[in-house]
Amino acid sequence: MTGTKNKPSVSLVGAGPGDLDLITVAGLRSIQTADVILYDALVNKELLDEAPASTIKIFVGKRAGTRYNTQDEINLLIVQSALNYGHAVRLKGGDPFIFGRGHEELEYIKAFDIPVKLIPGISSATSLPLLQEVPLTRRDYSQSFWVLTGTTKELQLCKELEIAADTDTTLVILMGIKKLKLIQRIFLEKGKSNLPVMIIQNGSTVAEKKIVTTMTEVVRETEKHEIGTPGIIVIGAVVSLHPEFVYTKILANGNHR
Amino acid sequence: MTGTKNKPSVSLVGAGPGDLDLITVAGLRSIQTADVILYDALVNKELLDEAPASTIKIFVGKRAGTRYNTQDEINLLIVQSALNYGHAVRLKGGDPFIFGRGHEELEYIKAFDIPVKLIPGISSATSLPLLQEVPLTRRDYSQSFWVLTGTTKELQLCKELEIAADTDTTLVILMGIKKLKLIQRIFLEKGKSNLPVMIIQNGSTVAEKKIVTTMTEVVRETEKHEIGTPGIIVIGAVVSLHPEFVYTKILANGNHR
Repeated sequence: MTGTKNKPSVSLVGAGPGDLDLITVAGLRSIQTADVILYDALVNKELLDEAPASTIKIFVGKRAGTRYNTQDEINLLIVQSALNYGHAVRLKGGDPFIFGRGHEELEYIKAFDIPVKLIPGISSATSLPLLQEVPLTRRDYSQSFWVLTGTTKELQLCKELEIAADTDTTLVILMGIKKLKLIQRIFLEKGKSNLPVMIIQNGSTVAEKKIVTTMTEVVRETEKHEIGTPGIIVIGAVVSLHPEFVYTKILANGNHR
Repeated sequence: MTGTKNKPSVSLVGAGPGDLDLITVAGLRSIQTADVILYDALVNKELLDEAPASTIKIFVGKRAGTRYNTQDEINLLIVQSALNYGHAVRLKGGDPFIFGRGHEELEYIKAFDIPVKLIPGISSATSLPLLQEVPLTRRDYSQSFWVLTGTTKELQLCKELEIAADTDTTLVILMGIKKLKLIQRIFLEKGKSNLPVMIIQNGSTVAEKKIVTTMTEVVRETEKHEIGTPGIIVIGAVVSLHPEFVYTKILANGNHR
């Protein structure tokens, strides 16, 4: 590896939920001035076309079950890229600081005294419900929303899901599709069988699939429509506002309207 | 009012947290093709300069305590604007569907069979912590985050805050600055006096002010630094990751590391 005339710097950038146009203006500008881009599996690859032809593009993706690179390798690669090439853009799906390990990357880079610019992204947790016309909050439905991970570092459900299931808040679960049966059981045991649920796979991309249903039906519907990862699960009375939601029974937990 | 040759349509657009460059590419493009823009108090006014010179700009802002327009008046104005001028951009601070009454506007516009495009925005709830180098989630600190309103339609604290205060999740409270003493009391009664708290006023703008402190000190610090509305309150162990956070005591609720 050789030195560079370009001053080392890193931009830690959220690419948004998938749709090319849902990156920020600041994020797009960072790509357009990148000497090197390190990108994730969930990043829309067309964003890379916005970079100069000379920009080096490095895939550092991890997907559920497979790991092309460990986090330590990624951290090192970011720093090496900035030292060797100048402006390194670390492009992450969604927002860098929402279940993204972006803060660990920030800490690592800062330890080398390399300047870091943080550029937030549109999280799938907030944007995919909106694109389905489902508000995370709405008067008389929900006064808050709670975003949880379905897969902790111990590969367990977030421990707070049991508490969350007792509330009337809107829940958004990321990385939870593979735990869906377990999630369903928690809610059914609490008598919330008619609680509305929406699952969105590959949201805001051409491969998008979704189901809008109730807790009772959600596992069956997911199998029927072959919904898989990556996806988000939205649970709560606000899902009943989806244009395709049909009440077949009266909601068991009467918090809607 | 007279008719227009332009086909009526509405874009419901999130302007982001304040920084001009934190609007999405899609949001900026909608402004550049607007015949009329209806904008909120929290929207960065410089965004309006991106519109064509012929675009009509209408301020429909509400601020805490004052109401220039009622929601009914705003709904009607959006529809009238689209029918009279063509492409109406409803530009809202942050994200349109996070405490923004955007879904009520969507419903109203759809009732007139006017096509609506929804464009998500970067919420202050997720982006202002990031810009302060505070991640909403981080392994060993927090596996989830919960966004709540400090001011419901009954002007009360969100009823879930009592439950939230019992958890280890990261809490983000919007519109809560005026309820800070009440919020502090809830946490102090639960023995969480050393829980880290950050308050950011006018985040991502030139007028930004912030404090990074503990629950015991937060009211005093807010008064000392004259922090007011609009602002967000971030509560949780992740706030201890802020570069300026200093532990003076050991955290009472031992969830950090």
